[in-house]
Amino acid sequence: MRVDGRRPDELRPASITIGYQRTAEGSAMIEVGNTRVLCAATVESTVPQWMRGSGKGWVTAEYSMLPRATITRNPREVAKGRQSGRTLEIQRLIGRALRAVVDMNALGERTVILDCDVIQADGGTRCAAITGAFVAMSTALRMYQQAGEIKHWPVRDYVAAVSVGVLGGAPLLDLCYEEDSAAEVDMNVVMTGAGRFVELQATAEKSAFDDAQLSALIQLGRGGMAGLFEAQKAALGGR
Amino acid sequence: MRVDGRRPDELRPASITIGYQRTAEGSAMIEVGNTRVLCAATVESTVPQWMRGSGKGWVTAEYSMLPRATITRNPREVAKGRQSGRTLEIQRLIGRALRAVVDMNALGERTVILDCDVIQADGGTRCAAITGAFVAMSTALRMYQQAGEIKHWPVRDYVAAVSVGVLGGAPLLDLCYEEDSAAEVDMNVVMTGAGRFVELQATAEKSAFDDAQLSALIQLGRGGMAGLFEAQKAALGGR
Amino acid sequence: MRVDGRRPDELRPASITIGYQRTAEGSAMIEVGNTRVLCAATVESTVPQWMRGSGKGWVTAEYSMLPRATITRNPREVAKGRQSGRTLEIQRLIGRALRAVVDMNALGERTVILDCDVIQADGGTRCAAITGAFVAMSTALRMYQQAGEIKHWPVRDYVAAVSVGVLGGAPLLDLCYEEDSAAEVDMNVVMTGAGRFVELQATAEKSAFDDAQLSALIQLGRGGMAGLFEAQKAALGGR
Amino acid sequence: MRVDGRRPDELRPASITIGYQRTAEGSAMIEVGNTRVLCAATVESTVPQWMRGSGKGWVTAEYSMLPRATITRNPREVAKGRQSGRTLEIQRLIGRALRAVVDMNALGERTVILDCDVIQADGGTRCAAITGAFVAMSTALRMYQQAGEIKHWPVRDYVAAVSVGVLGGAPLLDLCYEEDSAAEVDMNVVMTGAGRFVELQATAEKSAFDDAQLSALIQLGRGGMAGLFEAQKAALGGR
Amino acid sequence: MRVDGRRPDELRPASITIGYQRTAEGSAMIEVGNTRVLCAATVESTVPQWMRGSGKGWVTAEYSMLPRATITRNPREVAKGRQSGRTLEIQRLIGRALRAVVDMNALGERTVILDCDVIQADGGTRCAAITGAFVAMSTALRMYQQAGEIKHWPVRDYVAAVSVGVLGGAPLLDLCYEEDSAAEVDMNVVMTGAGRFVELQATAEKSAFDDAQLSALIQLGRGGMAGLFEAQKAALGGR
Amino acid sequence: MRVDGRRPDELRPASITIGYQRTAEGSAMIEVGNTRVLCAATVESTVPQWMRGSGKGWVTAEYSMLPRATITRNPREVAKGRQSGRTLEIQRLIGRALRAVVDMNALGERTVILDCDVIQADGGTRCAAITGAFVAMSTALRMYQQAGEIKHWPVRDYVAAVSVGVLGGAPLLDLCYEEDSAAEVDMNVVMTGAGRFVELQATAEKSAFDDAQLSALIQLGRGGMAGLFEAQKAALGGR
Repeated sequence: MRVDGRRPDELRPASITIGYQRTAEGSAMIEVGNTRVLCAATVESTVPQWMRGSGKGWVTAEYSMLPRATITRNPREVAKGRQSGRTLEIQRLIGRALRAVVDMNALGERTVILDCDVIQADGGTRCAAITGAFVAMSTALRMYQQAGEIKHWPVRDYVAAVSVGVLGGAPLLDLCYEEDSAAEVDMNVVMTGAGRFVELQATAEKSAFDDAQLSALIQLGRGGMAGLFEAQKAALGGR
Repeated sequence: MRVDGRRPDELRPASITIGYQRTAEGSAMIEVGNTRVLCAATVESTVPQWMRGSGKGWVTAEYSMLPRATITRNPREVAKGRQSGRTLEIQRLIGRALRAVVDMNALGERTVILDCDVIQADGGTRCAAITGAFVAMSTALRMYQQAGEIKHWPVRDYVAAVSVGVLGGAPLLDLCYEEDSAAEVDMNVVMTGAGRFVELQATAEKSAFDDAQLSALIQLGRGGMAGLFEAQKAALGGR
Repeated sequence: MRVDGRRPDELRPASITIGYQRTAEGSAMIEVGNTRVLCAATVESTVPQWMRGSGKGWVTAEYSMLPRATITRNPREVAKGRQSGRTLEIQRLIGRALRAVVDMNALGERTVILDCDVIQADGGTRCAAITGAFVAMSTALRMYQQAGEIKHWPVRDYVAAVSVGVLGGAPLLDLCYEEDSAAEVDMNVVMTGAGRFVELQATAEKSAFDDAQLSALIQLGRGGMAGLFEAQKAALGGR
Repeated sequence: MRVDGRRPDELRPASITIGYQRTAEGSAMIEVGNTRVLCAATVESTVPQWMRGSGKGWVTAEYSMLPRATITRNPREVAKGRQSGRTLEIQRLIGRALRAVVDMNALGERTVILDCDVIQADGGTRCAAITGAFVAMSTALRMYQQAGEIKHWPVRDYVAAVSVGVLGGAPLLDLCYEEDSAAEVDMNVVMTGAGRFVELQATAEKSAFDDAQLSALIQLGRGGMAGLFEAQKAALGGR
Repeated sequence: MRVDGRRPDELRPASITIGYQRTAEGSAMIEVGNTRVLCAATVESTVPQWMRGSGKGWVTAEYSMLPRATITRNPREVAKGRQSGRTLEIQRLIGRALRAVVDMNALGERTVILDCDVIQADGGTRCAAITGAFVAMSTALRMYQQAGEIKHWPVRDYVAAVSVGVLGGAPLLDLCYEEDSAAEVDMNVVMTGAGRFVELQATAEKSAFDDAQLSALIQLGRGGMAGLFEAQKAALGGR
Repeated sequence: MRVDGRRPDELRPASITIGYQRTAEGSAMIEVGNTRVLCAATVESTVPQWMRGSGKGWVTAEYSMLPRATITRNPREVAKGRQSGRTLEIQRLIGRALRAVVDMNALGERTVILDCDVIQADGGTRCAAITGAFVAMSTALRMYQQAGEIKHWPVRDYVAAVSVGVLGGAPLLDLCYEEDSAAEVDMNVVMTGAGRFVELQATAEKSAFDDAQLSALIQLGRGGMAGLFEAQKAALGGR
C-alpha cells in the first residue's frame, strides 16, 4: 500500500488542458496528481546558426520551477545568474524526447521552443513536462498546418514519459515526491506511442540494481504509458 | 469609446482566487481583464543582516514574466544572467507598496517574500501584482496568526494599485496593453484602503503634462480603487 | 529651521561649470550644496538596433557613484558584476527626462549618451544628474550644430529636476542627505522650462500621504525650478 | 568491420597509470584508445553545509576538456563564465557513480573531489573519467588509510563505465568519436565489480529502440566491463 | 623636439591637490599634463580573511576610468560584468607599489583601500595613480595618527612612478598618449624616495631592446622622480 | 647551497616534448624541474575584428592551471565565472612575448592561439609557458609552411623566459616554488635568441632594490637563457 493509497502499478490521475495561456501559439496545463506544469509552445521562423540552409527544423525546451512550486521556497535561478545542472539536464532531456518524434524536414526551417514552468511540484516534473509539452507543440503546429504554412504533418508519433522506481525493494510506477526522495533506484522512461524507447535513465540512488529489477521497472513504465497517451489524445480532441 | 468597449473611468473585470498554489503559505491568482498574475507569499523566520536584533520584520517582492505571457516570446532573464532594469524597478515598487501597510513590529523578525509571476500580460501587470500580493500576504499571515505565532495582526490597511493614462488627450482608467503602448502620459497610483497615497509615478511618455491633467488622472485612479478593494475583500472572505 | 539653516522653500546653492572634462564633446560639473555630479555627453552616429532606418535619434544615460562619494565607502558595482536596481532605476529616469525635451527627428540617427558620475553625494544626486546632463547634452549638440552636422536645433525646452519631501510633517524643498533619510514622504519632480511635468515620483517612505500634502509638495517643487533653470542658463552662456 | 578494425564486442586498449600528477593525493591517467583523461583526487576534511555533523562523507567530481583535446579548438568554459549543460551533466554522473561504491560512514566527514581533465577526446570521455577517477580515489584513500586517518576501508566495490551504441543497426561496444557521432542509439553503462548497475542512460539519437535492442546493448556493456576492471586492478597493484 | 614641445628628459607639469573629495578620509587630485586622476583613501578596521590575527595591516587599490576620460567613449566595465585584464593588472601594480613603503605592523589590523578614478587620460595614468594614491593614503593615515589611533607612523618612505619609453630610437621621459601609442619600448618605473626600485616593467611593443637602451631608460626614469616627490611634498605641506 | 642543491646560477633540468596532444596542430610538453606545462597551438584563419583587411596576423594566449597542479587544490576559475587578475596578466604576457618574434605580415590574416595548461606547478610556470608555447607555435606553423599555406617563414627568432630573484640577499636563477615564495625580489626576463630583451618585470616583494642588484639579476637571467634555447632546438629537431 503506497503513501497515497495507490497500487504499485497505478498512475496518478492525469489530465491535460489546452489553451491555458491564450498568448501562446499552443499551451497545455498538465496535472499528474499534485504535480502541475504549464507548457507553452513557440514557433519561430529561424533555426540555430549551424542549421541554416539545411531545410530542417529544430525543437528545444526550457524548464523552470516557480519559487513556491515546492513546500519550502527555492530561490529563482536568475538570482545566481545561471541555471543549475539539474535544470540544464532536464531541458536537454525534454528537447531530445520531442525531437525524437518530429520530422525535421516536414517542419522546415523553424524552431519550436517549449517552455515548461512548474507551478506545483510533487515528483515526476520532468516526465510531466515531456508529456505536456508534446500537447502544446501539437496544438501550435496544428495552427500552422491549418494556416497552410506547414504542408506535411511533422509529428510522427506520440511521446510521453513516466518515472518508476524501487522503494523498500518493491518496484513502483509514477513516484510522488515522498516516494521519490526515499527510492533506492530511480528511473525515467520516455516512450513513443508505438511502444519504442526514446530515452531511459536509471540511477541507483541508494543501492545498485540487477537485470531482474531493471526488467521489472521497464515493464512497469511501459504499462503506465497508456494512461498518459489517453490524456494526450483527450486534450488534442481525439486527433 | 475604448478599444475594448469600456467607458474612460471603467475598470476591467477584476477577480482574485486564493489557494491557487497549494504548496505556498498563501497564494492568489489575480485576473484584471486578460492580465493574470500568480502571487505567492513565503514567511521566513529571518530578516536581512542589517535588521537582525531590531525585533522588526521585512517585506520584499520578486517579479517575473513567463516567456509566453506575451504575444511574442520574451527570453527568460536567467539566459542573460541578470534581471532587467524594468524587473528590478517593479519588484522594488511592489515591496515598498506592501511595506507601507505592514506594522513591522507586529510582524516580528520575519521576512515575507512575495513572488509575483505573470502568466498573461495585457497591461497593468505591476499594479495587478501589488493588488494580488496583498491578498497572498494576508492569507499567509492569517495562517501564522491562527497558529499563534503572530500575536497582533500586522496588516494595518488594504493596499491596491491601478494604472491611469492620457490617450488622445483623454484620461483613461486601467489601461490595457494596446492603450498603454500608445499613451502620452502613464501613471501608476498605489493607495491604501483609507484613501491615502503610498506611491505615485507619472511619466510623460510622449508629451509633458500640466496640473489639470495631473489632477484628472489622480481623480480617476482614486475612483478605480473601489473595485480592487472589493475583489480583495471577496477573496479574503469579507475579513 | 533646517539642519543647514535653510528656509523650507529654499534651494541649496546651485552652480554648473561646463568643459570640466576636456576629452568629452560636452561636459558639466554640477554642484548643488555638497552634491557634485560630473556629467559628460557623447554623440554617437548610431542608434539602437530597433531604431535603425527610422531617421530618429535616441538619448540614454548611465549613472554611477565613485566609491568615496559617500562617508562610508560603497563598493564598485563591477565587483558584483551587475548594476543595482537603484542604479538602473536612476539611469532610466535620467534618459526619460532628457528624451522628453529632444526632437528625435531633428537629432537624426544619432545617440546621445549621458554619463553621470557622482563625485560627492549629499542627497538629490539623481535630480542633480538630470539638471547637469541637460547642460552637457546642450553643449555637445551645440558643437554639432556649429559644425553643420545638425541642421535644426533639437532641444525643444529646458529640463531640470528637484527633490521635495515631508519631514516632521513639514514640506521641504531640495532635501540634503540627512533630511532625505528621515523624510516621511519623498518626491522627485522633473519639469520643463515651460512649467510642465515630465516625471513625478512620490513615495511614502514612512507614512501614506493625502491630496493636500501632494499639492503642497508639487507647489514647492515648481517653486524650486527657477533657480535650476538660471544655473543652466548661466552655464550655457545665456543661450 | 569497424572503422578502427575492431570486432563489435571489442573494447579499445585500456590502460591506467597512477601518480601522473605528483602534486595530488591520488592521480590516474587513463587511456582508452586515443581518449586520455587525467583524474586527480583531493581529500578535504570538510563536507557540504547540509551534511555537517552527520558523520558522513561526500564524493563529488569536476570535468573539463582542454581546448585542444579535440580536432577543432573548443573555447574554455570560463570565457562564457559558466559551465555548459553537457559539462554539468557529466560531472553529476561521475559523482553519482563513485558515491555508489563508497561507504560514507567509513569515509567520515571528508569530501573527495575528483578532477577529470580530458587531454585527448576520441569518444567515451565520461566513461573513461569514471573508470579513471575510481583509481585516483582509491589511491588517495589508501594513503589516508595507511596514515591511520581512515580506520575502515570505505570503498565497497570497483566501479567502471563503458559506452555502447547502435550503428547501422548493429550493436557496438566502446564507441570511438567517429562511431559515436553517427550512432542511432547511444548508451552509457556504469557497473560495479559485482556486476550490478549503478547507472544506465540510453538515448535514441536518431531512431527509437525496442526491448530486444536494449537487451543486446546491456549484454554488450556488461561484457566490456571485464577489461576495465582488469586495467583498474593492474593500476592499483592487484589490490 | 617632442609633440608638446618638451625636452626628452622633461616631465610634464605635475601638481597634486588634497581634499578634493570631502567625503573621504584622504583624497588627492593629481594632474600630470592633461592626465587627471582622483585618488581617495579609505581606512577600514578589518583585514582580508587570511591575515586575521596577524596584527598586520594591508593596502589594496582599485582603478577605473570614467567613460569620457578618453577622446572616444570607452564603455563601463560593469556593462561586461567584469574588469578587464588591463584594469586588474593596474590595480595589482598600485597595491604592490604602496605596500612596499608601508610598515604593516605599525598599520595594525587595518586595510587601506585606494580608489583611483581617471577623470582625464593622456598617457601615464597608472603612474599618476601611484603617485597620487601615496598622497591620499598619507593624508588619511595622518588623520588616524592625529586621532591617536595609530601610534607609530607607518609610512616608511615616499613612492612615485613615471613612464619612460623609446620613440623613434630616442629615450623619452613621461610619455603622453600620442607618444605612448607609437613607442617601440614602454617602461614603468616605481621608485622610493630613497632612490630604490619597487617595480620595473619594460615591454618591447615594437622591437626588442638591449642593455644600453635599458640603462638609458632607467636613468631617465630616475631623473624624473624628483619632480614627482616635490609635488607630493608640496601637497602634504612639506611633511 | 639552494634547497634543491643547485648553484645560484644553475637552471633546473629543462626538456620539451613535441606532439604530446595529437589532436592539436602543434603541441609541446615542457618540463622545468617539477614544473610541467602543456602548450598547444591552434592556427585559425581569422583575425580579431579590428585587424580585418590589414593583411596581418595575430598571436594570443590562454593560461590555466589544473586544480591539482598545486599541493593544495585551487578551485577552477569557471566556478567564479571569471579569470583572476593573475591569470589575465600571465596570458597577456605570453601573448606579447610571442608576438615580439613573429612577422605578422608573413603570418597573414591568421590567429595563432597558444593554450598553456599547467599540469604541475613548482615555480616559474609563466616562464615555462612562454618557452614551451614557442615550440608549439613553431611546430604548428611548420605544418602550415610545409602545406604551402604560408610562403615566408614568419618566426624571426627564438624567444624564451626565465625567472630570477633575490633570496637572503643572494641573486638566484630559476626559482622553484619554495624559493619564489620567500624571495625579496622577483623578476621575469623574456629574451630573444639574439640576446635582446622582450619583456622585463621586476617586483620588490619584500624590500626595494638598487641598480647593482638589478644588474646582477639581469646578468643571471641572460646566463640562464642558453639552456632554454637548447631545449627548444632539441625539441624542434635542430631546425
